[in-house]
Amino acid sequence: MTELARIGVTGLAVMGRNLARNLARHGHPVAVHNRSYSRTKELVEEFGHEGTFFPAETAEQFVASLERPRRLVIMVKAGGPTDAVIDEFAPLLEPGDMIVDGGNAHFADTRRREAALRERGIHFVGAGISGGEEGALHGPSIMPGGSPESYEALGPLLEDISAKVDGVPCCTHVGPDGAGHFVKMVHNGIEYADMQLIAEAYDLLRRGAGMEPGEIAEVFRGWNEGRLGSYLIEITAEVLAHTDAATGKPFVDVVTDQAEQKGTGRWTVQIALDLGVPVSGIAEAVFARSLSGDAGLRTAARELPGPSGALAEPAYSLVADVEQALYASKIVAYAQGFNQIQAGSAEYGWSIDPGAMSTIWRGGCIIRAKFLDRIKQAYDAAPNLPSLLVDEYFLDAVRGAQDAWRRVVVTATQLGIPAPGFSSALAYYDGLRAERLPAALVQGQRDFFGAHTYRRVDREGAFHVLWGGDRSEVAS
Amino acid sequence: MTELARIGVTGLAVMGRNLARNLARHGHPVAVHNRSYSRTKELVEEFGHEGTFFPAETAEQFVASLERPRRLVIMVKAGGPTDAVIDEFAPLLEPGDMIVDGGNAHFADTRRREAALRERGIHFVGAGISGGEEGALHGPSIMPGGSPESYEALGPLLEDISAKVDGVPCCTHVGPDGAGHFVKMVHNGIEYADMQLIAEAYDLLRRGAGMEPGEIAEVFRGWNEGRLGSYLIEITAEVLAHTDAATGKPFVDVVTDQAEQKGTGRWTVQIALDLGVPVSGIAEAVFARSLSGDAGLRTAARELPGPSGALAEPAYSLVADVEQALYASKIVAYAQGFNQIQAGSAEYGWSIDPGAMSTIWRGGCIIRAKFLDRIKQAYDAAPNLPSLLVDEYFLDAVRGAQDAWRRVVVTATQLGIPAPGFSSALAYYDGLRAERLPAALVQGQRDFFGAHTYRRVDREGAFHVLWGGDRSEVAS
Repeated sequence: MTELARIGVTGLAVMGRNLARNLARHGHPVAVHNRSYSRTKELVEEFGHEGTFFPAETAEQFVASLERPRRLVIMVKAGGPTDAVIDEFAPLLEPGDMIVDGGNAHFADTRRREAALRERGIHFVGAGISGGEEGALHGPSIMPGGSPESYEALGPLLEDISAKVDGVPCCTHVGPDGAGHFVKMVHNGIEYADMQLIAEAYDLLRRGAGMEPGEIAEVFRGWNEGRLGSYLIEITAEVLAHTDAATGKPFVDVVTDQAEQKGTGRWTVQIALDLGVPVSGIAEAVFARSLSGDAGLRTAARELPGPSGALAEPAYSLVADVEQALYASKIVAYAQGFNQIQAGSAEYGWSIDPGAMSTIWRGGCIIRAKFLDRIKQAYDAAPNLPSLLVDEYFLDAVRGAQDAWRRVVVTATQLGIPAPGFSSALAYYDGLRAERLPAALVQGQRDFFGAHTYRRVDREGAFHVLWGGDRSEVAS
Repeated sequence: MTELARIGVTGLAVMGRNLARNLARHGHPVAVHNRSYSRTKELVEEFGHEGTFFPAETAEQFVASLERPRRLVIMVKAGGPTDAVIDEFAPLLEPGDMIVDGGNAHFADTRRREAALRERGIHFVGAGISGGEEGALHGPSIMPGGSPESYEALGPLLEDISAKVDGVPCCTHVGPDGAGHFVKMVHNGIEYADMQLIAEAYDLLRRGAGMEPGEIAEVFRGWNEGRLGSYLIEITAEVLAHTDAATGKPFVDVVTDQAEQKGTGRWTVQIALDLGVPVSGIAEAVFARSLSGDAGLRTAARELPGPSGALAEPAYSLVADVEQALYASKIVAYAQGFNQIQAGSAEYGWSIDPGAMSTIWRGGCIIRAKFLDRIKQAYDAAPNLPSLLVDEYFLDAVRGAQDAWRRVVVTATQLGIPAPGFSSALAYYDGLRAERLPAALVQGQRDFFGAHTYRRVDREGAFHVLWGGDRSEVAS
């Protein structure tokens, strides 16, 4: 029996409770604390047999029950509540102690908190944790930022309770200060894009090919056995196969078609805009959710006409085409997300290893997928790969998928089925590979109305045309 | 001869200088001041004959030369420099005086500054000014926020120097505090979308129809006579018709195809994300510029394969189709932008009149267009119109355009010419009018992995399926 707890968790809502249980189940004595003691008591009463818990009624008791250096995990709402808990505990800690924020904090807040606590000698570790309730209990994917020293003390514990794939823990030190929460944010952004693409695939099979949800569930089950194999594809099949008991209808038909969101997808796009990284797949996914939720506008827009020349229903070969379009679009979404990670890493000096990120996303988290092994291989082969799209494996995949991908976008366009994810991914792909883009015209317009100048393809320097004068060119 | 100036301008770079000249030319005695006096002297030496200038060497002289209540216009860089100038002048002012910020400030900064100066009894007016150098001199579109009282004192002067269309000034009181800079920001976002759509139209005619820039210039000249008639279409024709003197090549072919940006397009998307308004047209435009500017990535991506089945070059009928696609996509871009104005107005309690915004955009600014008369009519007829798309005129326009619009997206997709603006606008349109969206599946996925619950189409309340258990439904 240890006299002190190895680690403590404060904030015992479902995520915190499950994380504490996970630690205890792995043999780590864990101190538990909650603002209201009743939750702490309940946890110990219900799950005390799973390991060694140190229930603490007060912050002081909680801190006193931790071995030194103290490891204290905060599992409370992001924002004000996190700051409040930090303010409560920091004065009770000593230099060398560690506070881990396991919530969904904005990485800029994590940077601020890390800098403030570093002044006091306390390590602040923003750790992204993905996998929901079940992941927290059975093994999440963990993305800890913070100092390398803090990872020495925390890493073994976090790796121990994380998911494992081929024996490799789904946890690694992401990089300094806010790097962990940044990567978790991009993970969630990719998740938005992935879910939107799956939704478009379903919509095309449903409305384009005229298939029923149960049939489509079978298609997704098949896809899950192939290169698309992933948690999201697997649960999509489950959701589509589910029948609503009350009505006997397909479950998906009784659910309101207004998607909700909690904010990390939006953050991802906002930060990508600051970094100048095109993440059109994530943006279209966030916008598609907003659009779906605007019931008033959608009701008003019911009268908008659809395509006039109704096409013959595409044959079932649409299934194979949609699989290709989904795979190619997914490659684009991940390529964009990984580019955002590289850009954030460069901007903040984090030295993030993209291959390591794909490794720790292979299990525990929502976007876990076979696919991530391919991404790991791509970055192992070329750590500074400018885009996943130019990796040999993905290039081959897109080469093979491309005609089908174009056919799917054409079909969606002709049938009037919205496919913003598929079509923006394809537009991004065609933009990347274009030898000349019409951006030259945009530069000409900007020079015309704002004297913003342009560069030339054949000479160095910035130039301006005297558009209002004799239209000669002047060096700027 | 007045003894005092009616208004003062500090910051005499090109925009400030031209605005001061515009005031002087309209008979308003204007005090002028600049951090370095040489610029002030130059202005008066060169343009003193245009009106009555009061050159001031110091901040104190400048303020002393203004009649009461003082009207002081700041024309400096947005951000720190604006705060520095406010800090310099505010102590010299008295309650009732007015500071006008004519720069491209973020509206959140304007809200902060307005609140701080209001405490001291000083009116702070964030005024969006569009039209570039030429507009500032000959009549810009002006979007002033701030208090109604400040507009009483400032409005007549600002309206006097603004552009006029049919005798109506392109200036009106937008709303309190940051409303003016917010509307200017959305104006710029729409400008990004509009420019991107024009660029795609050009690219399709160039690479899709195989036309030369000079021929395409003629097409744009023709379009400028029709419903697309606008400043941006007009200058596009000028840019495309221009020949580079040094090489004899079309100008657009010697300009580097990497579009630059200054930030207001990015802000528009970031704020739209916060407000939950889908502005996919603006987002795709911002991303297209970022993509074009990533030379390293584009070079690496040159090897990406294009469509394998080369199509026959579309006939010149593509011209008519592209006009339809451009018009329909433009309606979507403006519909999204105006929805953002309505959402911002609701969020911040600004009571902005969208019809008045389209009125003041008809002249002076970059997006001035015939089209805006239609928008004004739409909002005059229905001030709470949920979307421009459901206004009778625009609905008819889209009904007529839609088949051609779809053909253009199909052609771009098949030819491998990126058209993210056209295709995302169409996807938005098809999303809005969809009776059922696959967002229901997204809600099912979210409930599966995160117990986020869903609503039902047939009953009130939030529900959750016990996915890990017997899959029964529980009320949440």
